[in-house]
Parts: sequence; structure tokens; C-alpha cells
Amino acid sequence: MPHSIAIIGASGYTGAELIRIIATHPSFEIKALAANSKAGQSMAQVFPHLRHLDLPDLVTWEQIDFDQIDLCFCALPHKTSQEVISKLPKSVKIVDLSADFRLRDPEAYKKWYGNEHAAKEMQTEAVYGLTEFYRDDIKAARLVAGTGCNAATGQFLLRPLIAAGVIDLDDIILDLACGVSGAGRSLKENLLHAELSEGTQAYSVGGTHRHLGEFDQEFSAIAGRAVKIQFTPHLAPFNRGILATGYVKGDAEAIHAALSKQYASEPFIEVLPMGETPSTHHVRGSNFVHIGVVADRLPGKTIIVAALDNLFKGSSGQAVQNANLMLGEDETAGLMLAPCFP
Amino acid sequence: MPHSIAIIGASGYTGAELIRIIATHPSFEIKALAANSKAGQSMAQVFPHLRHLDLPDLVTWEQIDFDQIDLCFCALPHKTSQEVISKLPKSVKIVDLSADFRLRDPEAYKKWYGNEHAAKEMQTEAVYGLTEFYRDDIKAARLVAGTGCNAATGQFLLRPLIAAGVIDLDDIILDLACGVSGAGRSLKENLLHAELSEGTQAYSVGGTHRHLGEFDQEFSAIAGRAVKIQFTPHLAPFNRGILATGYVKGDAEAIHAALSKQYASEPFIEVLPMGETPSTHHVRGSNFVHIGVVADRLPGKTIIVAALDNLFKGSSGQAVQNANLMLGEDETAGLMLAPCFP
Amino acid sequence: MPHSIAIIGASGYTGAELIRIIATHPSFEIKALAANSKAGQSMAQVFPHLRHLDLPDLVTWEQIDFDQIDLCFCALPHKTSQEVISKLPKSVKIVDLSADFRLRDPEAYKKWYGNEHAAKEMQTEAVYGLTEFYRDDIKAARLVAGTGCNAATGQFLLRPLIAAGVIDLDDIILDLACGVSGAGRSLKENLLHAELSEGTQAYSVGGTHRHLGEFDQEFSAIAGRAVKIQFTPHLAPFNRGILATGYVKGDAEAIHAALSKQYASEPFIEVLPMGETPSTHHVRGSNFVHIGVVADRLPGKTIIVAALDNLFKGSSGQAVQNANLMLGEDETAGLMLAPCFP
Amino acid sequence: MPHSIAIIGASGYTGAELIRIIATHPSFEIKALAANSKAGQSMAQVFPHLRHLDLPDLVTWEQIDFDQIDLCFCALPHKTSQEVISKLPKSVKIVDLSADFRLRDPEAYKKWYGNEHAAKEMQTEAVYGLTEFYRDDIKAARLVAGTGCNAATGQFLLRPLIAAGVIDLDDIILDLACGVSGAGRSLKENLLHAELSEGTQAYSVGGTHRHLGEFDQEFSAIAGRAVKIQFTPHLAPFNRGILATGYVKGDAEAIHAALSKQYASEPFIEVLPMGETPSTHHVRGSNFVHIGVVADRLPGKTIIVAALDNLFKGSSGQAVQNANLMLGEDETAGLMLAPCFP
Repeated sequence: MPHSIAIIGASGYTGAELIRIIATHPSFEIKALAANSKAGQSMAQVFPHLRHLDLPDLVTWEQIDFDQIDLCFCALPHKTSQEVISKLPKSVKIVDLSADFRLRDPEAYKKWYGNEHAAKEMQTEAVYGLTEFYRDDIKAARLVAGTGCNAATGQFLLRPLIAAGVIDLDDIILDLACGVSGAGRSLKENLLHAELSEGTQAYSVGGTHRHLGEFDQEFSAIAGRAVKIQFTPHLAPFNRGILATGYVKGDAEAIHAALSKQYASEPFIEVLPMGETPSTHHVRGSNFVHIGVVADRLPGKTIIVAALDNLFKGSSGQAVQNANLMLGEDETAGLMLAPCFP
Repeated sequence: MPHSIAIIGASGYTGAELIRIIATHPSFEIKALAANSKAGQSMAQVFPHLRHLDLPDLVTWEQIDFDQIDLCFCALPHKTSQEVISKLPKSVKIVDLSADFRLRDPEAYKKWYGNEHAAKEMQTEAVYGLTEFYRDDIKAARLVAGTGCNAATGQFLLRPLIAAGVIDLDDIILDLACGVSGAGRSLKENLLHAELSEGTQAYSVGGTHRHLGEFDQEFSAIAGRAVKIQFTPHLAPFNRGILATGYVKGDAEAIHAALSKQYASEPFIEVLPMGETPSTHHVRGSNFVHIGVVADRLPGKTIIVAALDNLFKGSSGQAVQNANLMLGEDETAGLMLAPCFP
Repeated sequence: MPHSIAIIGASGYTGAELIRIIATHPSFEIKALAANSKAGQSMAQVFPHLRHLDLPDLVTWEQIDFDQIDLCFCALPHKTSQEVISKLPKSVKIVDLSADFRLRDPEAYKKWYGNEHAAKEMQTEAVYGLTEFYRDDIKAARLVAGTGCNAATGQFLLRPLIAAGVIDLDDIILDLACGVSGAGRSLKENLLHAELSEGTQAYSVGGTHRHLGEFDQEFSAIAGRAVKIQFTPHLAPFNRGILATGYVKGDAEAIHAALSKQYASEPFIEVLPMGETPSTHHVRGSNFVHIGVVADRLPGKTIIVAALDNLFKGSSGQAVQNANLMLGEDETAGLMLAPCFP
Repeated sequence: MPHSIAIIGASGYTGAELIRIIATHPSFEIKALAANSKAGQSMAQVFPHLRHLDLPDLVTWEQIDFDQIDLCFCALPHKTSQEVISKLPKSVKIVDLSADFRLRDPEAYKKWYGNEHAAKEMQTEAVYGLTEFYRDDIKAARLVAGTGCNAATGQFLLRPLIAAGVIDLDDIILDLACGVSGAGRSLKENLLHAELSEGTQAYSVGGTHRHLGEFDQEFSAIAGRAVKIQFTPHLAPFNRGILATGYVKGDAEAIHAALSKQYASEPFIEVLPMGETPSTHHVRGSNFVHIGVVADRLPGKTIIVAALDNLFKGSSGQAVQNANLMLGEDETAGLMLAPCFP
């Protein structure tokens, strides 16, 4: 019998991507879709690419009968998400795609997001949703916090290296290009096609991007000491994809070995042969991550590169992967869609 | 037990798209992949986006053991295709994605393609692969000829109208924008990103595009008289998608009714509510076709618009749809992937 | 001595394009820039690409001292434009880039724009700004109404053919692809990069686009009878450029001859050799128009194609061309910038 | 009297960009255009965007009468360039846009380009063409070697910092995104629109990009010791533009001061206010460079970012700037075109 699924925040890009994935999922059935600002509309109006599906019309989240729901995805903006989730019945499993439950420390949350958290007790209950590293906790969790898409990309590169002790922890740089959909469906001048296509620029330069909160939390926990990296994201003129280029100090062979060992049996993570680097083109529209390692001409310096689809593996695909675990399904169910190239 | 599949011409875009679709097909198994110019290479080298799949390395088509193959997709250039297919054992079912068996009349073939056909006897054997209109013949066929991607788009719009007698047959205009992948992986200056992005132009203007051979053949057969349309394709700066805008003389309501009736039970074809028109964005990466009808301000004139993905429904998806029928599978098997937006 | 120029509405794309052109104009000097919503800001904040220029900060239009101004460009939204222009001193020459003074008939204006015109007396005073056809009137005018960008493109194709009597006036179709900047800097979901790139769609289908008001007015005036064309614009994923494909009934040689004759001595309009068609790539960032003619395979039917840059020749370049005439300068002054390719 | 100009290699992108710039240059006149593979063709055939200009047809370079030429731009591939230039008469001033005369040391040339240099004596004669730093030498030079486009971008960022001694010379990272036109008009699969648009990837990773030869030569000369940086370029899906993001160790205020001082009176280089970073959108189609500096959250670490147009300031604009100096013209003549946005 299929699991009954609800999605709150179904009118944004991650909501749409959840529906797209669940459309061919073997055991998930969408029972309710909520988007308070567009309640009453059909999904064919909001997202015409989903018109072939037999989907419920949009309602407000308050209208959902949660007795009928096994698991609820929340794809709301941060801050709104914590307010809604704190009101949902405890019987419902939740995968939150917002930033609201990623940071366990209320002070860290306040520092990066600027407001007091409205559901502090749930911050510690929530399991950090980086599936490949929190698998067992996620299986047992009621509330899973999806990671930031940039944060996921950087962690796939760096966690195994910090854990294995093969890089200098005081000199880590992560330079990243992120596709447009990472900014969501928000109406801003710099996201208009006329202003964004045909060029690129950095943003949140100098260590101000909120995903640093996740990096700090996770890397410090692994290392058992404070680890603070440099991180510069760039807005790039494509819709899907993150390419993270890392500059680390350590031996390239040891780094490649640590990554290969970590991901040897992972279904979604491919470590390329030594010396090759990935492209976002080759993971677009999929749950896969490609990782490459190259030794620099300067001894002891190594370049590491990871590519994933921010909407899929970086957000909605990760969410379904976690939901699979929480509901006792095969972790890869519905997620083996091959990347869309060209 | 799964069907054993071979693909000849696996290093082009339609070959890659076939593999992408079959990757999650429930009952197809790829047994052999051929690309004579790249024989010996792995698919991970040729198409890194497929590296997670456990695929056979590329061989020459002559190296394939066809005793083990139930159905072979041929994704070769035209002219090469007829030479190869004429040498394949008769026991193998074939779906050809080239232009070689679309035209039944050797003279028409010669007119549009410039050379004598090398396998004339197979031209009449081949069934025209527009699934929604040749379903029964395809089920019984050994050789199915995939349609042109532009030709498919135009026919989805116009066949029901010609059959229903609701439009003037002497004044049909089809204006079309086609994505880049329709030109294949060929190395031409005008297909370079630097020359193709950020603008558009018409090509094969004035009735010289080869897909007119298909339109002439099919529309005349339906009408029982010669029907010749005007057709202008444009090369547009996106990778996937065809938008065909048709200008016809006839009553919009009657036209909408004829299309709605024709496609009422089709799983992949959506006729939009009267007055709405489709976007290629909403069918990208899928087997779906969206069709719209709008009455012009000038009485008796109607605009009809269709959108599909040239690589998927226009080529490889159509091919799999036909293969499903030829192998006794559900026609939609492996093809319900939702469009990829944004 | 240079002419003193003001621009009202300097924070939109056509305003920015005016400044870009005037930056290298030999005899125009910008004295005032107004944008009421951004008054007080510097142009480097609003349009960083203009930061190297020594420009006045933005003010409200009411703050401009018009005694110091020879000519004022108004790049405001329609309806706002008529309200502002009606209050400007009569001593100032005005080139309006909005839609407000294109239609001479108040009823036509109301039909297409939905409101009563607030400055009806100026509707007849204004000269229609299609330079190549209203040159003498423009020289003498105080108020010139810039044309619609789509309207300009279509008229460059069709005016000479209607005037020469070489096409059937009852069966004219104009199918058009327009770049994104044509929609201005407005915050709409469908203009976001994520929703607009990688695909296309028609809009204002069925004869509802407002530029039809201009076509109706102008073509009927030339023909001395009502002429109503069909017109379908498409939103295309590039920033600059309009490609108009026209379907007419008439002899291709006569059509090519009429166009060649009309534009023989025009500095900005190039009629391509018979059988060739233009590309928007080749006029991007310039004041040039390329026009092509191809005979269809069906006798008596002809395809005509025009390409221009909507922001430049379709709007701000046209405006400067008209200002040159109004101020007694060489018509081409500042406008010979070569197209930007690739 | 205008200077007589020849361009050898006029059928590539940098050749076209030279013509585009010279089209509105006040004192340059194109007397000969050579492209041996396309000799006999008109420029309208090779680059239709230049069809409005009255240009000579393409010839072979051997056909040029150099007695009539004051200055010759060579826009040939490297290796070919040295062979041609070594045969040109010594009376002609030359600006070479290839890589052939950038490296003064024959061993360094051989290391990075793989072949013996065919005109070693000219390697030392040639002046390195980074105008802002070699101005006096360029004025007196007969042969100027245009810099690599990536090399120029990196040097605008780093030269003043190395000279001022405000950064750690042993830990400099330059991460760069380069537009497509940087790869020229070469027919390669990865430059096709279908494969390049909608994503990004690194290339020449690990210190193998040839522009490192220039960085090594120049930075070491400034420092008076060996300086070797890390450099990772990325291929980005836009046609024009380079964004270089540098990671250096040094005080952000001192860095900003050094850059501001260096470029205070430069007409083409804009140092943004502290904390702001540039975008390639804002220099597209122009000779301008925008530079930004941001302090990292980690004390003593600073991010520096530069943006320029690789075809213009990175190549053909720089070439014209140098030619202006060599011919005694104002350095900015013909180069004040404002960037093209959107």
C-alpha cells in the first residue's frame, strides 16, 4: 500500500520538483498539496508541466487532514517553516526543505538568520538530512532537516577529508557556481533573464552566506575543533546545477583515496578517476553527485571539484531519499532517473 | 523476463536519450551499444552523464550478436542507416530513428534526400512511426520508421483537422521554432554556443526542409488529394523543444473540438482549454505534447500551437513508445517521466 | 555646442540604452536624468555598467530645470508618459518612447489600451516616429512618438509592399520572436531566468497584441482602405532581438524589388540578396535592420523576414535617430556602432 | 590622415571584434583583411553583422601590399602567428593577438606550448601588451604581444598587490569563469550550444593552463623572486566575459588602497567601493575592467574579484589600445563604447 504524502509549499520550485520525482515513485501517493497564497488553484495553473498528473488542487496547509498523511514535505521559506511545522500533529513524519532546522544551536541560528527561533525544542529533535552521513538517524527520525544545496555540495567534498585527517583544516577554500533555481521563484531584478543570462558575479562574498552556518557546525563536529572555511558562491546563468571547486592543502592521492573509500558503495555518488573533474551538465535533473580530484602543480596543494543538481540532489531528491528511509522503503526508490543531457 | 535491446548509433544525442529512457524502463535491458567511430570506448567516456549505469562498452555494429537481441534501435545518420539496416538479420525487430524509411515512395525519397535509396524493398515494409496514428500497424511491424521531430509536431496539430475536414487545405502555414539538439552532435559553426545563443534565425526557408516530404505524404494520404503546406523552421537558442505555430482557415471551435476528440484518451497528448497556448518549457524532458487553439480576431482564421521535446517525444521517446507496442508491453512503460521544469 | 539632453525614466532598459548610445554621441550631452522611484540614487547604483560615465544623479522629473534642456527623452510606462508629457513646457522637444502618442485616434487608443487618453490634443500633434517613413515630419516636430519595437519590425517589412501593391492585403501573417528586454524591467514570474530560458511560447495570440493598433493605423493609411493583419509574437530566450517572419501572397521578385528600391539609400537598412534571410545575431546592439525575401515552393507565396535589436533600432536607437533630425544633426550621429557578435 | 590598418586572421572572433571596434574609430582605416582559409570571400559572407561596412574582401596575407600599411593586427592561432610575423616587413608595426610573443624566454615558451619557437630573436623584441603596465615600452615598440585574456584579468588584480607587498606571495589562488568566445571559433563538441549551455565545468585544472606561463613570468619579475600561483579556469555558459575571483592573504584595506592608487587615473579600470564586487554583465562589449575587494570573515584573508570582456579588453580592445599608443593617437580613441546591458 502506498504511503500518503502531503506537500506544504507546493507552488515553489522545490515543491514542483518533489511532485516531479513522486510522479514516478513506486510507493508514494500525493494526497494533499498546500500553498496558502495560491489555495484554490489547480496545479495545472501553477505548474503547467505537471498537468498530465491527477493531482489534488492547492489548499491552505490548515485545510489538510493530517490523519490521512504518513509524511509531509515542507517546502516553505525559512521562518515560515518553523511556525507551520511547530503546529503540525506529532503523528506525522516531516521532511523540511527550509533552513529552519539545519542548525542545532539556537545561537548559531540567530546569528545566521537574524531572528529568535520559534521552535527551539525542535531544533535538537531534527536530524540533519545529509543522507549519506546521517542514514541511521534519519531512519529513526520524525523530523528531518534538508540541508542547504550549497552546503550539501561542499560537505560531499570535504567531510571525508576532514574525517580522514588528510587536509590542513586551517586553509580550506570553497569557490562555487550555483544555478538560478537555487534562488527560488522570487521576483528580484537580478533574477530576471535580461539581467542574469550572459554573465556571472559573486554574491555573499567574504563569509556572509548562511550555508556557512552548516559548514561550521558540521565540520567542527567531525574535527572535534573549530573549523572555518572560506566560501564564495557565484550566481551562474543556468537553471540547475552547482559546481564547487575546493582548494585544499594535502596529498592528492590520499585525498582521492579518502573520497573513494567513503563513497565506494554509495548509489548516488561517483568519484571520478584521479585527474578528471566533473561537469554540472552530467548530473542535471538527477540525484547523482560527481566528484573529482586533481593534484596542483604546486606540491601539497590539491583541487577538488563536486557537481550536483541543486533542485534534485541538493534539495527535493535528497528529501525523497530521506523520506524513503523514514518510511522503510528502498533508499533509491524513485530516484534512479538518469541525468538529462543535452 | 526483460527484452534484450541493442542500440546502433549510441554516441549521438538520440542514442543517449534512448539510454536515458531505458535506464528506468521496467522491462528493457540494454545488451549491446554500437558506435563505429567510437568503438572500444566506454559510455562513461562518451556520455559521462550515463556513468552510473552498468552499460556495455561501445562496439561496432558488426560485432553485435543479434541472436541475443529482441529489438534494435538504429540512431544513425540517414543513408548510413539504410545500409546498415538492410544487412541486419530479419529476426530482429527494428526501430529506426533516421529519415531513411519515413517516405514510402522511392521517388519522393530521392527528391528530398538526393540519392537513390539502397533498400527500396524495405521502404514499403516499414511502418510510419507516429504512434498515435499507426498504433495497430506498429504492433505488427518488424521495422518502424521514426518520424522527423518537426514532422511529428506538425502532424499532431494538423492530422485531426485534415481528417475532420475543418480547415482549408490550400492555405496551411506552419511556423516552427526548434531547439538545438535537433541538429544533432554535428560540428558546425552555427551550432557553436557563441554563434547560436542569444538570437534566432530561420533556416530551410521557402519549402526546402526535408520534413516536408513527410507532411506531403501523410497529409495527402489523409485528404485523398495533394495537400502542400508552407513550413518555416527557426533555430532557437535552447537545447530541447519544438514550438509549432500553425495558421489555418477554419472555425476555432470546430478545430478545438476535432483535436479534443482525437486525443481524448491519449496518455501523452494534452489539448489545453480553448484560448490557451502551450510552452516548450512545460514538456521538456518528457514524452508529452501540449496543444492549444486560439481564434484570431479575423473571423474564420485560427492559430494552433503545439509543443513537444524534440529529443524525447520527437525522437527517442517515440521510439521507445513504438518498441513497447512491438514487444507487447504497455505503451507507456518507461515513458511517464514528468517534464523537467525549471 | 552640444545639445542638452534630459531623460525621464532613466532606470529602465530603454533609458539605460539611451545613455549607452549618447555616451559616444558627438553632440549630445546629458544634463538631467529622472526616475521618480529611484530619485537620489547614482546611475552607478542603478546601472553599474554606466559607472565610468560622469552622469548626473537621478532626480524626480519635477526637479528638472527644463530651461536648460533642448530635448527630453521620455522612457516611462504608457499612461504615466502622457500625464508627464502634458505637463512639460512647450519649449522642450520631446521624443517619447512609450505607447502613448503612437495612435492618432482617441478611440483606437482607448480600444487597445483600455483607458481614456489624458492628453488627446497632443495625440494629433505627435509625429509617428518611424524615421525612414516620417523623416520630414520628424524634422519639424516638437513631439515624436517612438514606435512599438514589434511594430517597427513589421512595418519595415510590409510598408513598402503595401505601398507598391505587390501583395494581397487580405492575407498577411506576421509571426515574430521577441527577446526578453522587450518586456522591460518588470518583475514577473515568466520573465525570471529560471522560467524563461531554455524554451519559448507564444503570447497575445489571436490578434490581441497592442502593436496591432499601430499596424492597423499605418497599413490602412498607406493602402487607403482597412488592412488587418494576423500577428503572433513569441517570447524567446535571448535578451535583444526581434525576428519577424512574414507570410504574404505575391511574387517574390516583385517583393524583393520593392524592398530594395525603398531602402536603397537608407543607412541602417540592409536588404539581403534574394533567397537569403537574416539573423538577430547580426544586428544585436546596433541600429541596423536586415531584411530577406524567399520564394516559397508554392507559387505566389513568399516569405519575408526582418531582424533588428528591439532595444536599439526598435526603441532607443530610433529615438536618437529622431532626436538627431529634430536637432538638425546628421541622422546617423552616434548610431553607427557595429553589431556585437558573438 | 587616418592610419592604414591590416588585419591578418580576420575570420575569427578577435578579428571580427577588431573590425567592430575600428568601425567607429576616428583615425583607423582598414586597408586589407586576410584569412587564408577564406580568401576570396566577402566579410558579409563570413561575418554578416559587418555587412553594413565598406570592407575589402578577404585575401591571403601574402597578397597584402605592406607598403601601404602602417600597422597590422595578427589574429592568427599561435604557432602560425610566429611563422607569419617573422616574414612581415620590418617597416610595419605589429600587434599580435596570439600567444606567440608573450613569453620572453624560449624555454618557457617551449614548456607551455610544446614546440621550439620559430622566431626566437623576436621574442625579446616584443613588448608585453598589458597597456596599463607597459605603456612607455608600447609607445616605442614595433611588435607588441597581446596578453592572454585570462592572464590580463589576473594581472589587473594581482600586479599592484605584488608590487606593493601587501599579500603573501606563496598562497595566491585565482579561480576564474571564462565565457565561450575565449575558446575561439573552433569546432569542438564541448563548444556546441547543446553541450555547453546550461552548465559549467573546470578545465586545465591543476596548473596546466598556458596562461600560467604569463603569470609566472610577470609576477616573478615584479617580485624579484619566483612567484607561482594556483589557477583554475571554468568554462561558463555565456559568450563574453571573464570573472576572476582571487583568494589572497593580506589586509583588505591595504589591498583596496593599493588597487585604488594604481588605477586612480586609468581611463578603463574602475575600482569599486570597498566591499562591492563586479559582474561581467557590466563590462560586456566594452574595454572596461571592474575590480572589487572584500575582507573575509577570517582575519587576514581577502577576496578580490575582477571582471572584463575577454574579446574586448581581454583581446581586441587591448590591441587597439596598444595600436593607439604605437601610432601616436589618444590611448582611448575608439574605445569608449559603453558596455552593452542587458
